Amino acid sequence: MNLILIQPEEEQSDGRIILTDQRAKHIQGVLKTTPGSTVRIGLLNGPLGEGVVESFENDSVVLKSRFEKDAPRPPSIDLILAMPRPKVMKRLWAQLAALGVGRIVLLRAEKVERYYFDSHAVDPACYEKLLIEGLQQARCTYMPEVLIRPLFKPFIENELENLFSDHTKIIADPSAQQRLDEIFEPSGFNGRVVLAIGPEGGWTSYELRLLKDGGFCSFSFGQRILRSDTATIALISMLADRMERR
Amino acid sequence: MNLILIQPEEEQSDGRIILTDQRAKHIQGVLKTTPGSTVRIGLLNGPLGEGVVESFENDSVVLKSRFEKDAPRPPSIDLILAMPRPKVMKRLWAQLAALGVGRIVLLRAEKVERYYFDSHAVDPACYEKLLIEGLQQARCTYMPEVLIRPLFKPFIENELENLFSDHTKIIADPSAQQRLDEIFEPSGFNGRVVLAIGPEGGWTSYELRLLKDGGFCSFSFGQRILRSDTATIALISMLADRMERR
Repeated sequence: MNLILIQPEEEQSDGRIILTDQRAKHIQGVLKTTPGSTVRIGLLNGPLGEGVVESFENDSVVLKSRFEKDAPRPPSIDLILAMPRPKVMKRLWAQLAALGVGRIVLLRAEKVERYYFDSHAVDPACYEKLLIEGLQQARCTYMPEVLIRPLFKPFIENELENLFSDHTKIIADPSAQQRLDEIFEPSGFNGRVVLAIGPEGGWTSYELRLLKDGGFCSFSFGQRILRSDTATIALISMLADRMERR
Repeated sequence: MNLILIQPEEEQSDGRIILTDQRAKHIQGVLKTTPGSTVRIGLLNGPLGEGVVESFENDSVVLKSRFEKDAPRPPSIDLILAMPRPKVMKRLWAQLAALGVGRIVLLRAEKVERYYFDSHAVDPACYEKLLIEGLQQARCTYMPEVLIRPLFKPFIENELENLFSDHTKIIADPSAQQRLDEIFEPSGFNGRVVLAIGPEGGWTSYELRLLKDGGFCSFSFGQRILRSDTATIALISMLADRMERR
């Protein structure tokens, strides 16, 4: 926990914050603070800052908050991910929040088992905790917006355009001929990107066609076939690196 | 298993290969081949190719191999990784092989618990299987060379220079001021890189000094603090992407 994340409603009008949960335990037990110590805090979807420890009472910690004037820039990468195996997805949630993804759509595809969508991994009670864990690890305040979509076609036909109207849309496709440089030049780029990543078995040609009709350009990222989770982390990092250098 | 990996000694002088283990089960059960079918094969540390299924006998499969003339280019990224928690390391092995790392040094550091080196995760019987799993996933034939080094200083003083004499040496360091572009320009680069990644708590200043004395330049990769495994995958992918575009 490299950051104590605060919900907006937890901040009182005088800037005081009373914590009683795991965060209080962390501040007392792991950080071993004393009154007067400062801890790094962040306001959910808002600025970073610091909290001065005012007092401890039983299991609670009282902080006096000082937030920075400006919030960090929100993530500019969104993700459409064909739902991986639930076990893999559970491991991915925190990593996606830590890497900085704005919106995550978990989508059904032909080669995604239907029962994946009945798993605990797509239950907000499960993934919200994991996302917050990732934010607190990475010192980031932006909670990804999550959309779970167990039907491919209705999502593409009814939602895709509205959700990603001002996005550059790219799709990782091992069969593609073009390299990312040929379809996406970050130096001339000032907006958001949505990256679509298929299931381990790949998108079907029907799915690829619908995605392309929706404005996606496919690119190849080499000969290696990576596991869903490895590919997701690899592609987001690669894209973030290119965009940060523009 | 996107590739059936063959040990050199398994290839007979007439090009026949008799498989009896998991690979035979995969060819029969998962790929559902019949005599005459071809499967993708690769020679460990050598070329890719295809195997024509000649016959099935009980649990064995006989392949006739045809390897390509040239082997793919070996990985040009090596890794020095402060040993992560054993559970995390177990998950990383296959991913490192899949991403394409030439040599992996697992190193002790001040902020690495000593008992990590007593774990099953550093036992060749454990990691060799996982590395092969990663190679077969990614369709890659190069088995990473693994060095387990539970002592930091002797490794740096006695081995580092010989092992990485012609390498560009870079170290991911959240406290660094320079960006990767300032110390490493792939376009003017034609050799190998070794990337050092510290423990979750960071290298100590003493360790950083020894690494820098050994020729490492440190670079920052943004404000996010990533978990060891996420950071490793992210940094290797980013580096591979930059090097492939040179």
